[in-house]
This record gives sequence, C-alpha cells and structure tokens, in this order.
Amino acid sequence: MAQKIIFDTDPGIDDAMALLFAHALPNIDMVGITTVFGNGTIEDCTRNACYLNDRFNMGATVARGAEGPLTRDPVGPTTVVHGEHGLGTIEAPADQPINIDPRSAPVYMSEMARAHPGEITLVAVGPLTNLALALEYDPEIVNYVKEVVIMGAAFGENGHRGNISPVAEANIYDDPHAADLVFTADWPVTIVGLDVTHQSFFSGDYLDKLRDGAGDVGQFIWDVSRFYLKFYSERIGVDGCHVHDPSAVAYVADPSLFITRQGPVRVVTEGPAIGMTIQKSDDQFYHHDQWSPSRAQNVCVGVENERLLQLYWDSIVSLA
Amino acid sequence: MAQKIIFDTDPGIDDAMALLFAHALPNIDMVGITTVFGNGTIEDCTRNACYLNDRFNMGATVARGAEGPLTRDPVGPTTVVHGEHGLGTIEAPADQPINIDPRSAPVYMSEMARAHPGEITLVAVGPLTNLALALEYDPEIVNYVKEVVIMGAAFGENGHRGNISPVAEANIYDDPHAADLVFTADWPVTIVGLDVTHQSFFSGDYLDKLRDGAGDVGQFIWDVSRFYLKFYSERIGVDGCHVHDPSAVAYVADPSLFITRQGPVRVVTEGPAIGMTIQKSDDQFYHHDQWSPSRAQNVCVGVENERLLQLYWDSIVSLA
Ligand SMILES: [Ca+2]
Ligand SMILES: [Ca+2]
Repeated sequence: MAQKIIFDTDPGIDDAMALLFAHALPNIDMVGITTVFGNGTIEDCTRNACYLNDRFNMGATVARGAEGPLTRDPVGPTTVVHGEHGLGTIEAPADQPINIDPRSAPVYMSEMARAHPGEITLVAVGPLTNLALALEYDPEIVNYVKEVVIMGAAFGENGHRGNISPVAEANIYDDPHAADLVFTADWPVTIVGLDVTHQSFFSGDYLDKLRDGAGDVGQFIWDVSRFYLKFYSERIGVDGCHVHDPSAVAYVADPSLFITRQGPVRVVTEGPAIGMTIQKSDDQFYHHDQWSPSRAQNVCVGVENERLLQLYWDSIVSLA
Repeated sequence: MAQKIIFDTDPGIDDAMALLFAHALPNIDMVGITTVFGNGTIEDCTRNACYLNDRFNMGATVARGAEGPLTRDPVGPTTVVHGEHGLGTIEAPADQPINIDPRSAPVYMSEMARAHPGEITLVAVGPLTNLALALEYDPEIVNYVKEVVIMGAAFGENGHRGNISPVAEANIYDDPHAADLVFTADWPVTIVGLDVTHQSFFSGDYLDKLRDGAGDVGQFIWDVSRFYLKFYSERIGVDGCHVHDPSAVAYVADPSLFITRQGPVRVVTEGPAIGMTIQKSDDQFYHHDQWSPSRAQNVCVGVENERLLQLYWDSIVSLA
C-alpha cells in the first residue's frame, strides 16, 4: 500500500524536483502539500505549490503555512539560488487559480494525522516552522504521525558542514528554534542533510537526458533547473546540482538507499553558530548533557548515489 | 634566551603538574602566576598556587584573578576530578604565607606586557576570564603580548569533542563568553585542546617511575595525582591520565611537538552546545559568516606523544 505523506515545502527549485518525484512514485500517496516561507516568500511559495499541483495534476490538498520563523529575525528569500520568485526563470501565471484549503498548514497536519492514525508521514523540505507550530497546536500529534522525514541540517559527516554559514544548513538556519522543537519532540524523525545530499549529484548531462527522455515533465525539470545550475556553475564551479529535497522523498520510498546513525539531536539557536545541528551518537556519560533527555533520531550519514539517481530517473520517466 | 611567561591557572592537579614543568624547563622563565576560579574556588586555587610557588621555590609573582565567569551562571568547582580543594588529597597548609601581588591578575598582565613589549607569553590553563578582563581593561594589550597559548577547547579532531558536555571542554564551558573574546581578539592564540591532550597519556607506570626517579618533585607529582587517577580509573576505566595542562607548557617549550591548523575560532555561548568551539579552517565563501572577520588562530590537531612524555620526564628529573 502506498504511504500517505504530507509534503511541507518552500518551492524552490529542488522542491519542484522533489514534488514531481513524490507524485511519480507508486509507493507514495501525496495527500497534501503544505507551504512555508524559505526559498521564497510564503506568497511565492504557495503560488508555486498550487501551480505545480495543478499543472501536473498531483491532486493534493494545498494548505498555506508560516510566513516567517518562530523567534529569530527572518533571513529572507534565497533569490540568488532559486530566482526572484522561487522557480528560477519560470513564473507561475498571475491569473492561475489558487485552490487553498481553509485550514492553516499546522491545523491541516493535525487533523489529517488524527484522521489517519499511524499512517501519515510528514516530509518537510523547508524551514520546520509549520511542524513546530503543529506540535504547539496539538502536542498529541506525536502519537498520530507515523514518521517525520526532513531535508535539512548538516552534521559534519564526510566533511559536510553548512551551506548558508560555515556550520549551518539553510533550512535549519531559517528557523533554528523550530528545528530544535521538531528534533526533540517524541516522534520518530529521520534527517536527510548535507552529509548525504552533498554526496548525490544531478549532473548537467543527467538533466539533459531527463529532458530528452521524460516528455513534458523532463522538459520542465530541465527548464526549472537552468537558474539553479547557473548558481552552481558560477558559485561552486560544477556542472549540475546536489540532490537536496528529492533525497527526503527517496528516503520515504526506499530507506535502504541510506545508512543512518541514531542519537538525540539539538540545534544551536543563538550566536555565530546559529542553525548548527549536533547529534550525540554515543552513550558516553557527561556531567552536563542536554542531548540525552531527548529521544534518539535517525541521521543519514551515507547514501547509494547511483541507486538514488536510478530511482529518480525511473520515477520521472514513468510520468512521461 | 628563556621565554617569559605568565601562567594563568586554576590549580587543579594537572595545573600543578604543568606548573612544575614550566618551572623546570630551562627555556621558560615563569615570571608570574595568575589565578582563576575553575577546578576550585578562587580562594582554593590562589592558596594552591601560593603553596606550590613557595614549596618548590618557583620565585614567581602571584596575582589573584577572577572568582567567576563574565556572564554565564557559575558551573562550580570540579571536586569530583580534582578533590575538595583542588589538589586531590593534598591540602595546602592553612597557616602558609600568602604572598600576593596587590594588583589583580588582569592589571598585572597588562602592566607586565607593557613593561616587556613583545616578550610575554600568556599561558592560560583554566577558564579564560582573566584574559578577557585584561582585554577589557587594556585593549592595547594585544600589541604588547608576544603570544597566547591556552589549554582548553575541543574541535572534534580525531573524534575528540567535549569532556564536561558532549561538545564542550571544561575550561571553555566555565566561561564561554571570555573564551570567545580571547579567540577573536587581534593577538596570536594557539589552542591546545582535547584534540591533542586526549592523544597524550601519563600511564600509572610512567608516574610510578617519576616518583622513583625524580626525588621530592617526583614524589609530589605521584602524590597529587592519586585522586586524579582514581577518577580516571573509576569513570573512564584507564590506569593513568591525559596530559592536559602540561601540554600547553610543552607547546611553548617546543612547538615542533604539535601539528597546528589555522583559522578563526568562535565559541557557542548559549543553549545546549554552550562552550563548544568551532574553527573555520577553509576559505570557502558563505552568505552568513561570523568567523571570517576574526583573525586566524592556531589549533593543535596532532602531537608527538612519545617526545612530549620524554620532554616532561627530562624536565622534572632535572629538578631532582
Ligand atoms: Ca526546500
Ligand atoms: Ca587547569
């Protein structure tokens, strides 16, 4: 049976790639899309989510979420990476229908989790504000959600630290207080961070082939990724892009693609290291330890890149 | 010519081992000992410093320093490691003369640095409060001090993170705000932290031989280390102890014992990771970067343990 997910997202170019992946996978049933600020404003991200949902007939309910972080000063959209409105040079038409659920994202999450106990996986690939607000709105949600899978964070595995600061990944940096609440809540979280997404890579050639082999969807992925690849080429000096948000979807579809490590996770919420994530993965005793009281979560530390790329390929081509 | 040092210390069992080392080394001239809270109260640490200075005829000026951290709540003495009054089961006599300089430690540091421009190395092996207060009292001190060498911190090299918390070393944890000021000030700092001190080890056998081969001083080091070794044996399960504070002295005497890495260093001052130290050692660009504005400091990441143990041995035996 397909796994029900609510996809919490700030589209975002790699969010679009991930949405199409979730839509395509036969063992994933994307019942809802919830939006959050991040790569763009909440207005742009919500417009983009509705646009993608409609254009590709995803059939998901769309619920709008948070417009900014819980506590910290807003960082602002990452237009340099994702373009002025979040989808590179592609603009969602101004006159498109915006079919939005009347509930806010956190309320929608709570009600869906309670309506389908133990069945809903929250897949979050933006700042974790909506999930933190859902925990605040309905603390019992931890007993109804099946699992939480997030793209974000960086634990220094394989030398991968931050991307927005020397130690912080952008989704966590955007709302570190929310992330700390989500990671320390009593529900099972799997974190797909830079430790693995920096080991996966969509080459320019891979995306060219997808354009030629996967019809309208392949052409769209190619089109939407042009701005992103320009950023990668100019700022990082590579032809292609890392597989960020699609990796969280891949984990839900096939966890065997990843090696995980268990242990409580906390987030630095103040100062120069704001947004840094730290896992305690041994059981050593310390006189002062603010990790051990929280439950162990899964951090992905290894990925089979070739199999991940093949799964993405097969899924997207099946839509053509 | 011997290098002039002011030894800032919270004795402390390994502080006592380091004081005797600094006293013994022919190329170190320990002109002053400044005291700070940490392993014990400021009263105990100052009493212990005076006791060691007198008993072993070190001839240093002793100046009393800070009784607590700049900003954070005091952590309290580490009696479980260093005993009730800081020197294990050895008690400084209650009626000993306390010959103290009338100046506070920060003022003494400033005046000595100005009296000997470019000649004084500050060697700090406790919380860095006195050095931070010296920077506040006399910001120009950075132009007069030759170098700052500290024992403290942990950078995750060779898997060595914290000792008092999962991510923090005790000296930095005791006053993280002071440490951040010291590391970001415009003077050259070398940090001798757990990354290397956890690679060096005084075995029980080594200390037995020192007792037998180094007269009164060897006997004292053996005596003072009994409580410390009991802690190591019971809590860590090893016979012996790491070479913490003496390693900072070793760096001053012979920097070639260590491999260092350059880059700005910041300290987490709030939250669960309080006291964590982070170095940015690459020149990668980040949109948000609170490291790069500060000068690069030296972090020790490798040590030649055998040569270090030999240097300590030769120095202590020379006192016999
Ligand atoms: Ca995203
Ligand atoms: Ca000390």
